[in-house]
Amino acid sequence: MDKPVDKPHEQIAALLADDLGAVNDLIRARMASRHAPRIPEVTAHLVEAGGKRIRPMLTLAAARLCGYDGPWHVHLAATVEFIHTATLLHDDVVDESAQRRGRPTANLLWDNKSSVLVGDYLFARAFQLMVEPGNLRVLNILSDAAATIAEGEVLQLTAAQDLKTTEDTYLQVVRGKTAALFSAATEAGAVIAGTDEDNVQALFTYGDALGIAFQMADDLLDWQGDAAQTGKNVGDDFRERKLTLPLIRAITEADAEEQEFWRRTIEKGRQTEADLDTARALLDKHGALDSTRQTALDWADAAKAALAPLPDHQLTDLLDELADYVVARLR
Amino acid sequence: MDKPVDKPHEQIAALLADDLGAVNDLIRARMASRHAPRIPEVTAHLVEAGGKRIRPMLTLAAARLCGYDGPWHVHLAATVEFIHTATLLHDDVVDESAQRRGRPTANLLWDNKSSVLVGDYLFARAFQLMVEPGNLRVLNILSDAAATIAEGEVLQLTAAQDLKTTEDTYLQVVRGKTAALFSAATEAGAVIAGTDEDNVQALFTYGDALGIAFQMADDLLDWQGDAAQTGKNVGDDFRERKLTLPLIRAITEADAEEQEFWRRTIEKGRQTEADLDTARALLDKHGALDSTRQTALDWADAAKAALAPLPDHQLTDLLDELADYVVARLR
Repeated sequence: MDKPVDKPHEQIAALLADDLGAVNDLIRARMASRHAPRIPEVTAHLVEAGGKRIRPMLTLAAARLCGYDGPWHVHLAATVEFIHTATLLHDDVVDESAQRRGRPTANLLWDNKSSVLVGDYLFARAFQLMVEPGNLRVLNILSDAAATIAEGEVLQLTAAQDLKTTEDTYLQVVRGKTAALFSAATEAGAVIAGTDEDNVQALFTYGDALGIAFQMADDLLDWQGDAAQTGKNVGDDFRERKLTLPLIRAITEADAEEQEFWRRTIEKGRQTEADLDTARALLDKHGALDSTRQTALDWADAAKAALAPLPDHQLTDLLDELADYVVARLR
Repeated sequence: MDKPVDKPHEQIAALLADDLGAVNDLIRARMASRHAPRIPEVTAHLVEAGGKRIRPMLTLAAARLCGYDGPWHVHLAATVEFIHTATLLHDDVVDESAQRRGRPTANLLWDNKSSVLVGDYLFARAFQLMVEPGNLRVLNILSDAAATIAEGEVLQLTAAQDLKTTEDTYLQVVRGKTAALFSAATEAGAVIAGTDEDNVQALFTYGDALGIAFQMADDLLDWQGDAAQTGKNVGDDFRERKLTLPLIRAITEADAEEQEFWRRTIEKGRQTEADLDTARALLDKHGALDSTRQTALDWADAAKAALAPLPDHQLTDLLDELADYVVARLR
């Protein structure tokens, strides 16, 4: 019997085990607080909860495949994970979430106040970390990403329930909630490595496209996933009246009667138990799930194509496989 | 009849009118968002609400009295105001406040979600702004301040209701909620001016002591202020069970019966209408208001003493007067 092949992010983790260990040590050291023990309690709940560390791994891989052998990629990887953790804390407050990665959220275990303030602390710690390498270009990349993330979150909040939301707005939201940090992670790794501009641009484009493919897949699984497999409840986005790509495409194609249905369920938020099935049937009718799947696959292909100019390296190959992997559950 | 003398911060504002105008222009330009109009709406509500701009003024004054004639003090002043505005947005969520500067808070006008996410956006914008001058030492100062602020806020949250809170913890909270940004504002102004280390240290110490005096005065007025004059409701800290210096000192001196009173009202939060008067009587009995007033005056004197090595300059004199002014309402 064949030995099962590890998933690409597991192979990257194995290849970069020393680097990742250093990142984890740095994260633990910097989430400490001399004065406020609540901070490491809340942070540990999330940081130790077994996330896949995809974002810091992207920074480490980008730096290493560009030949970097200095120490600072570890700081930038920890920065990226802190920004991610801070946004999760704030997201769960904004979404009033009760579960994350199969465990109760920090806002439920402690309170919203702790989640807001500990998130702020992690943002500030992220900025301290990113200053340490002393590289101004990296600082621009990461502070720009932080602004894009926050702007995307506000945009998502105000676009929710708005039936006029366009695909452009959706893409902006997706860049904010996911792709901006992916692309900053890869770009910052390339820049700290001092590699040439073509490689920097290639790794930025890869991170951006990978993030978009990843988020589109997530949004699609919210409509058709298997809760046991994905850990997500199918229909959450519908219940929260979030305009993701499948819904935007179905609404664009809606006839008068369907428009009335969307106005009631999304705009006015008057939903009954049976509405989720009706909504899914309307998405199927207009091929919105199939076409979103195709768009996600196209973004994964774009991510793979972006890798072309990069050095031949085992990590380059694994980044290629990673792009396939994030959409594999859709094929 | 004598012409009334302007308050010191009004005199500083008049002297630095061009600089402050540039700061206001930069703030307006950077609080814009191409994609999310909610952001400038929420921000303008707070930024245009007629705050005194004390913090950005400290940066501008520190840089100018050290002889700076470059452009970057404006960026740093705007950074400081953005960090301040972001913390106000998040504070009002955490405190569930309904009023700020005599107007409804953003969390009331919009919602907590908008306040959390727009606060995050302003933090990110602050970091973008502080990167632009390209001065790594300034970046360290301001990112350290951001971490101290967030840590102080968490500490305040966990220390609330805790009768064992010490004066040391109180000072840590005060540095977090006020003095860290004051001292970062003055220190960053000195550093961007390229002045010598004695001046940098003097301006740091001035900002730290000024911030502590300012916050202690605020905490004292919560117990004995005149709402019509201060815009604060007397007794808010008692109702929110916040351990500020007057209360900490009264609790330290409490006999058994008084301890029982504090346990019921602060630890357990079972308060009746009459308890505020009883609490104030206990503070009076132990001289806690007088001794806190004296401590605040001592910090104001420390701020003035710190100015000794600085250049003779109209702004140095006005900073001296400002230290008197923040505690003048206590004398």
